[in-house]
Amino acid sequence: MSLPIRDELKNVSPYGAPQIDVPVKLNTNENPYSPPAALVEAIAKNVAAIAGGLNRYQDRDALHLRESLAGYVLRDTGVSVSREQIWAANGSNEIMLQILQAFGGPGRKALTFSPTYSMYGEYARDTNTEFVAVARREDFSLDAELIVSALSIHRPHVVFLASPNNPTGTAMSLDVLDSVLKAAQNTIIVVDEAYAEFRREGVDSAITRVAKYPNLVVTRTMSKAFALAGVRLGYLISSTEMVDAVQLVRLPYHLSSVTQVVANTALGFASELQKDLDQIRSSRDEFVVWAAQSGFETIQSDANFVLLGQFSDRHAAWQALVDRGVLVREVGPDHWLRITIGTASEMEILKKALLEVKGL
Amino acid sequence: MSLPIRDELKNVSPYGAPQIDVPVKLNTNENPYSPPAALVEAIAKNVAAIAGGLNRYQDRDALHLRESLAGYVLRDTGVSVSREQIWAANGSNEIMLQILQAFGGPGRKALTFSPTYSMYGEYARDTNTEFVAVARREDFSLDAELIVSALSIHRPHVVFLASPNNPTGTAMSLDVLDSVLKAAQNTIIVVDEAYAEFRREGVDSAITRVAKYPNLVVTRTMSKAFALAGVRLGYLISSTEMVDAVQLVRLPYHLSSVTQVVANTALGFASELQKDLDQIRSSRDEFVVWAAQSGFETIQSDANFVLLGQFSDRHAAWQALVDRGVLVREVGPDHWLRITIGTASEMEILKKALLEVKGL
Repeated sequence: MSLPIRDELKNVSPYGAPQIDVPVKLNTNENPYSPPAALVEAIAKNVAAIAGGLNRYQDRDALHLRESLAGYVLRDTGVSVSREQIWAANGSNEIMLQILQAFGGPGRKALTFSPTYSMYGEYARDTNTEFVAVARREDFSLDAELIVSALSIHRPHVVFLASPNNPTGTAMSLDVLDSVLKAAQNTIIVVDEAYAEFRREGVDSAITRVAKYPNLVVTRTMSKAFALAGVRLGYLISSTEMVDAVQLVRLPYHLSSVTQVVANTALGFASELQKDLDQIRSSRDEFVVWAAQSGFETIQSDANFVLLGQFSDRHAAWQALVDRGVLVREVGPDHWLRITIGTASEMEILKKALLEVKGL
Repeated sequence: MSLPIRDELKNVSPYGAPQIDVPVKLNTNENPYSPPAALVEAIAKNVAAIAGGLNRYQDRDALHLRESLAGYVLRDTGVSVSREQIWAANGSNEIMLQILQAFGGPGRKALTFSPTYSMYGEYARDTNTEFVAVARREDFSLDAELIVSALSIHRPHVVFLASPNNPTGTAMSLDVLDSVLKAAQNTIIVVDEAYAEFRREGVDSAITRVAKYPNLVVTRTMSKAFALAGVRLGYLISSTEMVDAVQLVRLPYHLSSVTQVVANTALGFASELQKDLDQIRSSRDEFVVWAAQSGFETIQSDANFVLLGQFSDRHAAWQALVDRGVLVREVGPDHWLRITIGTASEMEILKKALLEVKGL
């Protein structure tokens, strides 16, 4: 017997990066540095402190955590927001789902610019939202003309702009965002800043525009900058109206007591974690220079990964790297591979392997 | 500016029991007993052991946890299931959402029998599934004739049957379920067993029918029997086809590494937690007898709560209990209040208060 699943799910496979057990894993944009020992100790202590009360439901609205996130946003961007402008969920993908449950759905449309994070299309499918992906410029950049024209052609209800973009690593300038916000005041504009903490000097966060545009939502995650991929804590910074809206569709008690306390503990270690971010940024910039000097093409990256090309047979290059113990991601535009920035020693192994597979 | 939220969300309030700070909280069906000290210690130790690796994404498929859940299901019900027949998520409400994302949605219909858990309607709304609630019998029971007739009239794609039912506490007999399963082989039949571990002797779990009917899904939670409301671990037991289907709509990495390890730790304490369940069951049975002797009406309950009535002014009775430091839930059929079974001393305070508010 086959079950009566929805038609659009027939012949679909679950999303997820292929996992292969190799020594150097540079395929899922994880932070290569473990949480420091003091943070590990604080997490254990704080979880122990609440575990005796786990028979009770937690703070449904995660007020304390949202207050701490507001403090962190102020330190990272200089922008003062209230906890009522912040919402947290199990990963930024749950945030995205909630946004589409509230503002997308049947008869509504979401728009993005490809190549970009491939989950946007899945969030749309899972919420029965029509989905349109318009091509970026040849160099994977976005400009106001391209976006505003797509808005006027497609009239979307929700727009996803990843900045820095995944898998290209490129950030969008705030001048572009300003033009879009002026042109699209009745459209929800989501700027996905999952990788924002890796941005280069002089690149500002879209959070600086939140006070002026209630339809702007900036999403972030603790998976990357806070080295907490396994914790699943995503959040949004927007208007209080937006937070009120996603609260209508959130599952009650969606964010566990344990997740709240672990995330809150890690926020207290933001400055200790800064040196790892600095290290990742400088390794990335160094790698981009090395790649250009070694005959590869790369895109300037504001993220913790780099798009590297071009390979005439991308899959053969990917496999040749796997054979050399290095797992990268075969994703995004053809002829390119996405490579996460690892530790110094991982980057040495990667470079050696890349030189060997260069002709492919 | 007001945001372009979906029409069906206008004038809606977020779901959630009102919380009032009183000494005796009997309003959200929590287990009144804290996790034992040895479990608290084991949780802290096991979280500490994985915290150093939180920079990496967790096991996306939670295989180890699902294996442990299969072991627990065998011990609780005598039914042997494989981990491929089990799926876990952040609370059974995320499980329900995933079921409707896969089998509900636009053009499809979900059916339940009221009074029942009011979130079913919200899951349907959040997945754009048409929702029908058919009335139970006068005594809140369900029989095969009622269900099969509703199935033939409404032709739903998904049916939610809570057993024990919330807020009435009544379990459905497996004879009834067998008739429904025979009549509805192309419909997804969800039996919500959130409170199954509190069932009386002689009441069997629907899990005993899973092997025969691939369209049967039994959902459970660790919130109640495992005293882990704050952890958010719900799961389903069904066919491998069903598990394959929900994996198509699950958000990637939906279940955090920390949730997996905490839940897995608690499963190892199932027998230690049994004495608290026994205590709750005997307090409940005692309370039902006391209530009848004291001039109240109650329904025989297989859950950790009791529906108690009848009050001519239910809200006045609720308020009078709050005034006496006891918070119960004003939910379900008019003239009735839902009361969670608390500790022995909480039940004494409750009984005293109830005698005082009896005339209302």
